[in-house]
Amino acid sequence: MFKQLETASKGDKLLTADILQQLKYNADGLVPVIAQDVESGQVLMMAWANQQALEETLTTGRVCYWSRSRQSYWRKGESSGHQQQLHSLRVDCDGDAVLALVKQTGPACHTNRRSCFYIELSTTEAVINSEPLC
Amino acid sequence: MFKQLETASKGDKLLTADILQQLKYNADGLVPVIAQDVESGQVLMMAWANQQALEETLTTGRVCYWSRSRQSYWRKGESSGHQQQLHSLRVDCDGDAVLALVKQTGPACHTNRRSCFYIELSTTEAVINSEPLC
Repeated sequence: MFKQLETASKGDKLLTADILQQLKYNADGLVPVIAQDVESGQVLMMAWANQQALEETLTTGRVCYWSRSRQSYWRKGESSGHQQQLHSLRVDCDGDAVLALVKQTGPACHTNRRSCFYIELSTTEAVINSEPLC
Repeated sequence: MFKQLETASKGDKLLTADILQQLKYNADGLVPVIAQDVESGQVLMMAWANQQALEETLTTGRVCYWSRSRQSYWRKGESSGHQQQLHSLRVDCDGDAVLALVKQTGPACHTNRRSCFYIELSTTEAVINSEPLC
């Protein structure tokens, strides 16, 4: 399938069901999902999803992950209210990563920062480069 | 370490060496690295790196991954010329993902597209939404 996608052209259409089935899930049946703010372009977080979570995301229009720590579906914002409304879902050329463009309500990070990527490394030091929103 | 980072404030400094050592590498010693174009904000690709590849990235200022298919260091652009000059390197709140903001020379994708995420899924169909650059 992904060999076929590498040679596909703009406008070519394939079935989503086929693609979701043939993603390169890891031994736990998961693929990494990058969430990016569709308005600002900021990369908000990276988490994991199985095939069913991706299907639910497309069907409901809200991003659903698989929580590896809780071993359960993680409907982002279900308890915090900080949900991610799906703008578009993309997969990469070799089918081992997913990009979700989202409208994020409030902070994406559990530390109440907009993005989880707030620790910036130099060759010697790491700096915290943003504050919690509230 | 990452419990400590969750409660850290803006301007707090920690040692990069400590952070790189305590990232949550998987069973193969790898973490996912997201490459984002620092100028356009476009998410270009996701690949994997081990601790030594991350150290090299910081030291040389060019992104180095670990190729899982070739089982070797993958100095992006070494053969293609499509290198990634590092602007900044970030880690996330729980230390299991890395974000590299880069200046990308040419296409990031081996299909000669700017980004690897050119396959867009709807509930039913998948559409190729960009063409190779050359």
